[in-house]
Formats: sequence, C-alpha cells, structure tokens
Amino acid sequence: MTMQTNKDRMNEKLQAFSHFGALEGGGITRLSLSDAALQARAELKKRVEALGMTVVSDDIGNIYATLPGTENLPRLVMGSHLDSVRSGGNYDGVYGVLSGLEVAETIITEGVKLRHPLTVMVWTNEEGARFEPAMMSSGIVTGKFEKEKMLAVTETGGTVTFGEALAASGWVGGAENRLNAADYCAYFEPHIEQGPVLEEEGLEIGVVEGVVGMVNYDIILEGVSSHAGTTPQHYRKDALRAASKIILDLWEQLGAIDKDLVFTTGEILVKPNIHTVVPSYVKFTLDARHRDMGVLDKVVAVIKNLPKDVYGCKLSFEEHWGRKTIAFNDQLLGFVEGATKALGYTYKRMYSGAGHDAQYASEMLPAVMLFIPSKDGLSHTVVEYSTPEQCWHGANVLLNAVLEADKTL
Amino acid sequence: MTMQTNKDRMNEKLQAFSHFGALEGGGITRLSLSDAALQARAELKKRVEALGMTVVSDDIGNIYATLPGTENLPRLVMGSHLDSVRSGGNYDGVYGVLSGLEVAETIITEGVKLRHPLTVMVWTNEEGARFEPAMMSSGIVTGKFEKEKMLAVTETGGTVTFGEALAASGWVGGAENRLNAADYCAYFEPHIEQGPVLEEEGLEIGVVEGVVGMVNYDIILEGVSSHAGTTPQHYRKDALRAASKIILDLWEQLGAIDKDLVFTTGEILVKPNIHTVVPSYVKFTLDARHRDMGVLDKVVAVIKNLPKDVYGCKLSFEEHWGRKTIAFNDQLLGFVEGATKALGYTYKRMYSGAGHDAQYASEMLPAVMLFIPSKDGLSHTVVEYSTPEQCWHGANVLLNAVLEADKTL
Repeated sequence: MTMQTNKDRMNEKLQAFSHFGALEGGGITRLSLSDAALQARAELKKRVEALGMTVVSDDIGNIYATLPGTENLPRLVMGSHLDSVRSGGNYDGVYGVLSGLEVAETIITEGVKLRHPLTVMVWTNEEGARFEPAMMSSGIVTGKFEKEKMLAVTETGGTVTFGEALAASGWVGGAENRLNAADYCAYFEPHIEQGPVLEEEGLEIGVVEGVVGMVNYDIILEGVSSHAGTTPQHYRKDALRAASKIILDLWEQLGAIDKDLVFTTGEILVKPNIHTVVPSYVKFTLDARHRDMGVLDKVVAVIKNLPKDVYGCKLSFEEHWGRKTIAFNDQLLGFVEGATKALGYTYKRMYSGAGHDAQYASEMLPAVMLFIPSKDGLSHTVVEYSTPEQCWHGANVLLNAVLEADKTL
Repeated sequence: MTMQTNKDRMNEKLQAFSHFGALEGGGITRLSLSDAALQARAELKKRVEALGMTVVSDDIGNIYATLPGTENLPRLVMGSHLDSVRSGGNYDGVYGVLSGLEVAETIITEGVKLRHPLTVMVWTNEEGARFEPAMMSSGIVTGKFEKEKMLAVTETGGTVTFGEALAASGWVGGAENRLNAADYCAYFEPHIEQGPVLEEEGLEIGVVEGVVGMVNYDIILEGVSSHAGTTPQHYRKDALRAASKIILDLWEQLGAIDKDLVFTTGEILVKPNIHTVVPSYVKFTLDARHRDMGVLDKVVAVIKNLPKDVYGCKLSFEEHWGRKTIAFNDQLLGFVEGATKALGYTYKRMYSGAGHDAQYASEMLPAVMLFIPSKDGLSHTVVEYSTPEQCWHGANVLLNAVLEADKTL
C-alpha cells in the first residue's frame, strides 16, 4: 500500500520559489546568501512554521525544520539546497528541498504519525558559484574543509567574504545543531538527474547507488610560437595542432575502456592566441568519472602513456584532484527502490556523475539519493526543466521511502 | 665592381637605437608615437642632419630625410619603420631604416655623387600594436584607409587617439610631402626575414619577389553544452572534439595542396570553457598564404567542402578578409639580385609571408624588398636577432642596388 503527495501542491511550491532571483525570460540567479536566496529561505521558514515545524540553523547557516516523532528516536532528514548558479534553473537543489517539504506537508495534513522526527534541511552554498568551493557546508560539517578558511573566502568577482555574508544573513545558529550521526539516522536527497539517461530511456526514477569517483588532469603541450606568414609548415611546432591530436586520441583510447566512463576536455588555454601566430602553448583539462576506481586507474594509465613528443611539441600533465567513488547505504537504497516499485514507476539503479551534499553526508550517516528526469539532460541553465508529473513522482517515492524507513529503522 | 658599407658603423647604429624603449633583459617596447618612439625619431633627425640631409615630414608623420642629387630626377627612397610591437626586438623595422641610413652615410662619407636625390624614410605606425590596423600610414597614402577614420582610432587598452598622439608628436608636416609616384621612382625596403628559411638553408640574402596573397576564415562548431559528470559519451555534441577533428583534417588536406602553402589556426574561442562542462561552441581562425592565388582557391574549396556535421556539431565558416599576391618590380628585383651576386653572397628569390609597407608602396611606384636571416626564424619577440655580419651584408646589397638604380633609372 502506498501514499501519494499532492501534485498541484508540489507544483505550486516550485512555481512560488521560482520568483526568488527570477530572470527575465526564465530561470534564476540565486547565489548563496544573496537577497534572492534570503527571500527563498524566509519563504521556506514561513511555510514550515505554518505547518507547525520547528526551525533552527547551525553555525554555517544550514537550516533544519523539524516535525516531532512519537518516539525518542533519531531523526530522518530530507535535504538539498536553495542556491543556484548564475543563470541557473528552477529545479537543481530547490526541487530536493521542496519535495521534502511536500512530503512533510502530506504527512502533517494526512495526520500520519511518524515514530521518528522528520527534518527538512537546506544546505548553505552548495553550488559554490558565489563562494568557492561547491558543497562548502557539507564539506565543513564532515571535516573536509576548515571552517575558518571557508569563512575567509571572498565572493567571486566581489569583495564580500562568506563569513560576512553569513553574519549579515541572520541565519547563524549553534554548532550543536549541525547534522550529526547521533541525532540523525537517515539522509535522503532527491535531485534532478542533470543528465539525459532517464529521459532517453523513458524512465521515471533513478535510484542512485552512489556518486562516481573522478580524476582531474591538466594536459600541457609546449611548442614554439612563430609567424603565420613566414614559417613553412614543416618547421612548425604548433601546440594547438598537438592538443587537437591528443584530444582525439583521448576520445579513442578512453572511449574503449568502458562504456560508462565519462570524460571531458572542457577548458582550454591557448597562448598567444593571435590569429597570425603559431600557438606555442596549450593547456587543457581532462575530467574523467566512473564508479569503478579500477576504470579510473586505466584512465590514469592512458594519460601516463601519452607520447611525450607530439608534432615536435613537448607533452606534460599535472594531476589536479580526484575523489573516490561514494556508495550510498544499501538499506536506504532498498527503501527507495521498494517505494518506486510499489508506486509502479519505471526506474533504473544508477550512479550520480555530479557531486552532491549527499556524498559528504554519507560519510557520517546512512544516506541515499533519488533522481527525476531532466529535459534534454540539461541543468545549470535557465532552460533546466522537469515536468510537474516527474516532480510529483519523485516526491511520492520520497514519501514512501521515508514511511518505510520510519517503520523499519 | 662593388662598394661596401661600414660594418662597425652599421652595428653601432643598431646598438644606439636599441636603447629607445629598451626592456630589462633585452628587446624593446617602442609603440608608435610613444615617448620611446619619439626619442628614436629625434635621434634619427640628429644623425641625418649631421650628415647634411634635409628632413621633412608629411601629414601622417612619415619622415623623409633627403640627400640632393646632381640631376633633376625623381628620388630613390629606402624606407621602413621605427615602431615595435609590445616586447618586440631590435631588428623588425628599425633595421630597414638604419641600413638605409648606413647606405646614405657611406655615399656621403665616400664622396659618391648620385644623379637622383636619395631619401631615408620612416613610416608611422607600421605594427598597429598601439593603433590598429598595421601598415596604417602606407595604407592611408595609397588610399586603402581613410585618413579621418584612422585619426579617430583609439589606442589599444587606452584612451588616446592616433590623431591626438600624432598632433602631440610634433611630426605633422604637409600632405604634399607624402611619398608619391611623381617625386619618387624607386622604393627599397630591407627587412629581417621573420622566418627560418634563410637560416635553415644557410643563405645570406632573400631577394623578395613579392608578398603572398592570403585568405582568412573563422571556422565555427556548434554543439550542446552538458554536464561533464552526467552526460554519457555517446550523447555528447562536444564542439572542442569537433574542432580538434577539423584542425587535424585541415592539416592533412591543406598540407597536400602545395609545399609552399602556409596555414595557421592561431586563435581559438571556446564556450563556456569550464572544466566540468562539455564545450558547446568553438570558433577558430584559419589564415592561409601563398603567392599563387590558384593555390588559395584550393584552400577555399577545402573549407567549403568541410563536413557540415562533425560529431553531431554544426560546422559553419565566415570569410574575414584576404589580400591578393603583390609582385614587386622586376627591374628593381634585378638590381637587388645583381648586387647580391656581385658581392658574392648566397641568396634565394622568395616571397614574403608577412605584410610590409612595401606592398602598399608598390601600388604607387616600383618597389622591392630584401631580407636578411632571422635567428631561429623568430620575430615580434625580445630574442629576435640577426648577426652584425648579416645586417652588414644586407646594407651592402642595398647600397649596390641603389647605386645601380641611380645609374640606370
């Protein structure tokens, strides 16, 4: 037997929050702790308090709105974020918070009594678009980032620090309120897929098994700059020609490793980048992700075996950073998958290619994610879209997974 | 029978002028009409007046220092420029002016009487590094550029216009002094090669038959930006991958057309150029040059036959600008080649891949150029270098070509 959330009410929430930071023509810019983000926080506070939930924040401004349970048990928490990138959309992050809110509202209005307290949570500064890095607060809470260093981070393109913006926000609470493994027993994060797989395969839900590991490299080609008009072709050491060769070679060699491996050469720097001068220097990024760290080891082997001389240019590389694959909690996965099946939705088990606060949270306590489809696989853009039906389906899965967790845990 | 210039005196000139705009560690920045450039002009004026030459300038600040002839004949003129690019060298341009000065000084100090007046000329703003475009003054004199428009050009990265800098320079003279076909009968421009051919082939002089024609295109690839972590490889429309393919295809196809064809993909713009995003847009330049316009027609045909779809990205192109091949004057070429042979120097006839004021001058009156070797083919850099011996050889060729022209014309 399953319960359902209210489809129109779910959609109303998304519409209401789309006004905070709205851009002409669609989409939003709602950078962390900006006026638009604070408006969204105030609206959330108003709504959860109207439902009788209690709101506190921790020392990094993370918000916890809680409905009491009938027993003295640790809490179930549904979390995500309200901030966006510049010219972002109305689903990335906010969907996770608002589907959590819709689940709480359904439970309250339907008179369901949970044994565990249930918390709707908002992470501060997930995107890192205003204050780098991304996932700042979950990183602080799990000890990845030092709080003092993060408070000193200055906004991109401005002068305000994260600490100053946080103090001015009115959302600084006690450190004792932070998400922790004693007071919480399960973390759920619904999110849009941000990729095309569910849509292309005609599926309604992604049951997210974990977040894939990744490696990041810079690959550098050094040639010799010379005059476009006076240097015969066979004398040239053209770094852009060499980089083009390596980019195609990487597609061929990495493409053969595993069909689920994703890799991207997204950023390129060319010097001197003048149309009458042969390029002397090219640096480009390689980002590769896969759930199996053994596959990423093969990626690293390919990089290490790249030729050191490419059309007379010297090739070198630098490792930037990486992360190991994170696996979510099997029991919570079972609740999400079970709820999806019980609701009769089509789904697949899949890994997240993008990073989410859930990956840090999962280091502290059992955590899991679920995905709904993204139109054309697009996110971080004003045209980011999931249908009201898809948003509602995700909330229904979340509701029934939470109910199952409440019974079982 | 040949005459020779003075090697030490030639070298002293180059050393003396290397102080104007000198950079620590070598090279110069001597942007057009800058303080450094005005110092160089003042030094030239002092030196030519000490030799008894008469100095005038025209309405664009071009300088003409003239030694009278014994007959009422049009003038022979040796010209080049004193301005440099940012972080340029001590040979590009200034060598042409100073070898002309050395030729005049030799003629004067040796008591040679020329039938024709002999002029040492300086073009204002050849490089276009401060005020675009390059070859501005020769372009104005030959009607390529409108003077009023050029006077209104604002310096790159600043606020001063060319007209303001010119007025402040003290070098504005009468338009009647401009280089013209009635008062001048032969234009000589010595220059460094700016390429590696003479050095690589162990030759001392390039007898320059003309300036190669060129075509310039932008080639554009339009794909779809998507998330590096969540977009499977086979869904991607990666514009940088597509551009890499086209750059390599161009090397293959254009490389097969003609061994003397030079082509360059020097400038590239990638959007959004973020390491976690698949590039959606790439525009890169293609510059191709050859003396045979038929070869350039084949280049255009290759561009027009590029596939319209490359890995799912849409390919398009835009023609930017081009120039037809300029052939220098046969009779003057004969004087330069004859002088080179008579002096016993090794040489080759060759085309200039770079543009020079001589190409515009040649539209008005008989013109010719000669090249001396460039170390490692480098120019527009602080390490630009030609040996004192090479500089002296070029001056000797210029001297004997001028003497032959004086006898014959």
